Amino acid sequence: MSRIPAPYSDADDSLFEFNKMVIDATRDHCVAYKPNTAFFEAHGASGWLSLEKTIRYIGSSHFVIADAKRGDIGNTANMYAEAFFKELDVDAITLSPYMGHDSVSPYLKYPDKWAIILVKTSNTGSSDFQTLVTENDSPLYIDVLRKCLAWGDIDNTMFVVGANNLSELKGIREIAPDHFFLVPGFGAQGGQLKDIQPYLSSDTVGILANYSRQVIYAGDFAQINEAAAAIHRQMREMLKTL
Amino acid sequence: MSRIPAPYSDADDSLFEFNKMVIDATRDHCVAYKPNTAFFEAHGASGWLSLEKTIRYIGSSHFVIADAKRGDIGNTANMYAEAFFKELDVDAITLSPYMGHDSVSPYLKYPDKWAIILVKTSNTGSSDFQTLVTENDSPLYIDVLRKCLAWGDIDNTMFVVGANNLSELKGIREIAPDHFFLVPGFGAQGGQLKDIQPYLSSDTVGILANYSRQVIYAGDFAQINEAAAAIHRQMREMLKTL
Repeated sequence: MSRIPAPYSDADDSLFEFNKMVIDATRDHCVAYKPNTAFFEAHGASGWLSLEKTIRYIGSSHFVIADAKRGDIGNTANMYAEAFFKELDVDAITLSPYMGHDSVSPYLKYPDKWAIILVKTSNTGSSDFQTLVTENDSPLYIDVLRKCLAWGDIDNTMFVVGANNLSELKGIREIAPDHFFLVPGFGAQGGQLKDIQPYLSSDTVGILANYSRQVIYAGDFAQINEAAAAIHRQMREMLKTL
Repeated sequence: MSRIPAPYSDADDSLFEFNKMVIDATRDHCVAYKPNTAFFEAHGASGWLSLEKTIRYIGSSHFVIADAKRGDIGNTANMYAEAFFKELDVDAITLSPYMGHDSVSPYLKYPDKWAIILVKTSNTGSSDFQTLVTENDSPLYIDVLRKCLAWGDIDNTMFVVGANNLSELKGIREIAPDHFFLVPGFGAQGGQLKDIQPYLSSDTVGILANYSRQVIYAGDFAQINEAAAAIHRQMREMLKTL
């Protein structure tokens, strides 16, 4: 909230008014939006209302991902699926795999909706458990990937794979050549768009490259527009060479 | 919602009115409440409002756990901590450990608040990843336990440990003799209150035995009251023999 500039910070619903401006400034330069539920929940019920308004404002022209990292037992997962796929009506939700198949499968039953499962994240803590080598002679994140590949298919499952470790990204792409990846970790976290080109996979399957703070905090409308346009140009150049 | 009986189901805020009745019927028989965020989020912003009202209605006499299973990178974890410890002002939140230390540490900075971390859950999917043997010659859930013990202390950390596998519960208690455990998996999931007696640990540290559906769907006010009272009696008998 402290990073929302005037005049949006003075609005009754400053969260929504800021988001509306960011959406207007970036709509022509991106294919998806990924609102992070934590930043809305921090404002309670009124924050959740701002989230609902933001998602409605994006509309159906863009793919909408609720970055919620949910993960709970079957009957609770059913409720989260209802919360996000029916009530909020987003296209996709990010999920944590720790609790296993019944924490993922309820989301896979919804046609045209996507479970985006954490495989190898880009944060420092990702090496605490995700890279532990297991009885399968692979790091845990590869075990997660293999199991999730068996639970879903390319039409209902994507994976979160950080951009800041290219050898891991390469290994994951080899095992999952036909799935879309949601890729965070660009910019401040060290990932470069040009470096991930080999892992776009094909002309029908690729990555959703996630740029958040670098764009939304770029400044005013014109600066946010230009920040998004610059990434868009980079992406187009990269795609031309495929 | 389909399991909320009349007249609560006819109320304007049927979620809250049902919860209010359950709280009134059980207050004298329990030490904590654990609202599950999914069941509120399924009703959008108005559901979140029902959650806020429910938590306020419980008040400060009981320990309140937001069963939210959150788990995200540092700056997002900071926001969730704010959402749950400041805005909702609950005493504790359940967390998923997959993303590592920066997904847990922001919650540990709040005095008199608790991170309750998933170690070994009671659902069927808990054997997908939690029991994989790692390079440390232990199942993943033991690695999670050991790392979390290093991150927090007995005054800010608890662990989720299912009641339906006693040998696992025993092993976890040996490694963490001084921490409280939140224990689901009783009743329908196979755990028996009397079986966990050896793992209560001491007269100052023990378990929070979680009974949910068995109580809240027991019937009318009198039946819910009696369901909670019966568990209360069982617990008292067990504690007397310590």
